[in-house]
Amino acid sequence: MGGVTATYLVHDEKHHLVKKAEGIALGLTIGSWTDLPSLEQQQLKKHKGTIISVEELEEDQWVNTYLGKRVTRGILKIHYPADNYSNDIPAILTTVFGKLSLDGEVKLLDLTLTDDIRANYLGPQYGINGIRNLVGVYDRPLLMSIFKGVIGRSLDDMNAQLRAQALGGIDIVKDDEILFDNPLTPFEKRIRTSKETLTNVYEETGHRTLYAVNLSGRTFDLKEKAKRALDGGADILLFNVFAYGLDVLQSLSEDCELPIPIMAHPAFSGALTPSEFYGVSYPLLLGKLLRLAGADFSLFPSPYGSVALKREETLQIAEKLREKDTYASTFPVPSAGIHPGLVPLLINDFGIDSVINAGGGVHGHPDGAIGGGKAFRRAIDATLQGIPLTEVDDTHVQKALALWG
Amino acid sequence: MGGVTATYLVHDEKHHLVKKAEGIALGLTIGSWTDLPSLEQQQLKKHKGTIISVEELEEDQWVNTYLGKRVTRGILKIHYPADNYSNDIPAILTTVFGKLSLDGEVKLLDLTLTDDIRANYLGPQYGINGIRNLVGVYDRPLLMSIFKGVIGRSLDDMNAQLRAQALGGIDIVKDDEILFDNPLTPFEKRIRTSKETLTNVYEETGHRTLYAVNLSGRTFDLKEKAKRALDGGADILLFNVFAYGLDVLQSLSEDCELPIPIMAHPAFSGALTPSEFYGVSYPLLLGKLLRLAGADFSLFPSPYGSVALKREETLQIAEKLREKDTYASTFPVPSAGIHPGLVPLLINDFGIDSVINAGGGVHGHPDGAIGGGKAFRRAIDATLQGIPLTEVDDTHVQKALALWG
Repeated sequence: MGGVTATYLVHDEKHHLVKKAEGIALGLTIGSWTDLPSLEQQQLKKHKGTIISVEELEEDQWVNTYLGKRVTRGILKIHYPADNYSNDIPAILTTVFGKLSLDGEVKLLDLTLTDDIRANYLGPQYGINGIRNLVGVYDRPLLMSIFKGVIGRSLDDMNAQLRAQALGGIDIVKDDEILFDNPLTPFEKRIRTSKETLTNVYEETGHRTLYAVNLSGRTFDLKEKAKRALDGGADILLFNVFAYGLDVLQSLSEDCELPIPIMAHPAFSGALTPSEFYGVSYPLLLGKLLRLAGADFSLFPSPYGSVALKREETLQIAEKLREKDTYASTFPVPSAGIHPGLVPLLINDFGIDSVINAGGGVHGHPDGAIGGGKAFRRAIDATLQGIPLTEVDDTHVQKALALWG
Repeated sequence: MGGVTATYLVHDEKHHLVKKAEGIALGLTIGSWTDLPSLEQQQLKKHKGTIISVEELEEDQWVNTYLGKRVTRGILKIHYPADNYSNDIPAILTTVFGKLSLDGEVKLLDLTLTDDIRANYLGPQYGINGIRNLVGVYDRPLLMSIFKGVIGRSLDDMNAQLRAQALGGIDIVKDDEILFDNPLTPFEKRIRTSKETLTNVYEETGHRTLYAVNLSGRTFDLKEKAKRALDGGADILLFNVFAYGLDVLQSLSEDCELPIPIMAHPAFSGALTPSEFYGVSYPLLLGKLLRLAGADFSLFPSPYGSVALKREETLQIAEKLREKDTYASTFPVPSAGIHPGLVPLLINDFGIDSVINAGGGVHGHPDGAIGGGKAFRRAIDATLQGIPLTEVDDTHVQKALALWG
């Protein structure tokens, strides 16, 4: 039977996980069962939530102490029949984690959709392969960098930054996610100017850099604005999806008048993910759901920087983004705290089908953004050739190592 | 200077709250300050985030033990100049709690907008007074109830339920938030049939009941669908705003072609609110922001039921919904676990400008939904007259008290 299976981490003070699972399976579907006449049972059977599995976890004294009560921790899997909801992300989220999200210590860990449900979602329209075709790079991780400190700066400032990054060999330069429509660097002018700058660099050097512009503003204006971005020559849309909604991302992605890749930024997602008791797991939110909704890139905190996730969590995110299935893969972009010395670790952890993304690690290089970009590119090549960075005969790399280790 | 002031609860392991506040104020605006040349400082001054206040809280051993590290807890207030972002909720949330939401144990407690920022938001289009005009009731809390167990049921079933609730004297009957588009009770047919039923009851009894239909589906279809709901005779739109986005609610509310009240359901909001370390506070999310975005009703877990918030938190939500300012007030709807015996407590806590909302407390009454509705109405009248419920000479009330206490 088609539908969605949700996996929850629960903390049950009544110490009866099966009963808790039954309460969820019925409470979020038909309400009651055993007290129904058999005719109604027959009528409602196909709408009834069913328990797939109940797994008790080891008791955690740490958790008991913090919560001030003894709880049984468990993993519950509940299946919700497709007949109960329309096939869209808001309806699915409301069904499986609507009122349940408000009901004590419960975290949504995963969602598994049957093929007939999945068929309604197109996934990434470009994906890793499509992006590689745009960049023309197939055999290494892509290199991305971010404009730095652009609020209050002029278009000339931004362009100087962009040119330096492109000359450094960066593949993609993205807007800062907090750069919105503003009179100093207006949306369309910013796009046109960036395009010119990047075309010039391409003509001078043969290196192609893509520009990801921040798509922002009111929800119902986004499509029209995205079309203007596309017409103006933007290569990628950066999108703060969690300040809007996953369904908005999906609508932008699947719009056939908007053939442009989308880079999902995790801004605001930290309101949903980090608690061990509540919210939604990282791999589900920043991995599976972003890909389902059509993100071509997913940025998330790397395990190395100051804003850090656990390594295992980041690997799980990347795994969901690149799972072998019917959808194109989404580029994992582990971000924050990245400098050239981390390239071997990044490639070891995330493989070549990932994006190495740096801000300070490019701009803060002793030789500026050009040197920073070159240091990264050289570090990537050396790593793929099996050469330890300390042995790389390149001044940009060695200066980066001296500064950041 | 116009802008938004954000209030955060932080947990700082470096025990230097002022430094932490400075890091946020700069990191979320212009990036750096002290190392800038004075010309650039002048140019960027109006974009710089500023610290409004830093308050250290008492050390909490409970928290230290759970986190496994000693932290200084503090309340930080940071002001973000309006020049930095477009005046929409996604841009504001991304600015004040975008990457910061991912940066350790930090919770967004409140947002204060200066008047020039607020002027861009219309707030509730009906509000408490507008809804009272629709219902024709001014001197008591409104009484609302919810369809029960409607998934898999026929239109006839729903209508029988609706009729019973209306005959019981309920003011508003709302869809279950997990009832989506489905072949058994299709959207427009459900609206038209409900309207007929409620018109019949009005003609028979003189009592007017409003119907709140669940507006669901894809984001970019919502406006057109809401227009169909309005044309079909729906009185109120129920909306699972947190499965979409606050900006979508705002767009529906301010659309002048959609003169219909909106009832915000808290489904999925529990993914954001309950942690003491992360996310967004209840009063901000279910109070201030819903009202800013134009919700005419805000449902939230009552402090009395099994799905319960702390009483103080629910009072703070209600306070934000009805704050004396330029916006119309939003109806607070404390929900879950409500039965007639709680009416005195509800009126004591939330006053007459609130909605008493029950599911099981109406349908589970020994005399059915008609009896349940009447028990509530009588309990409300008695409470407003200062009569203790145990002394009310009414069989519906006494049966309710006998069953639920």
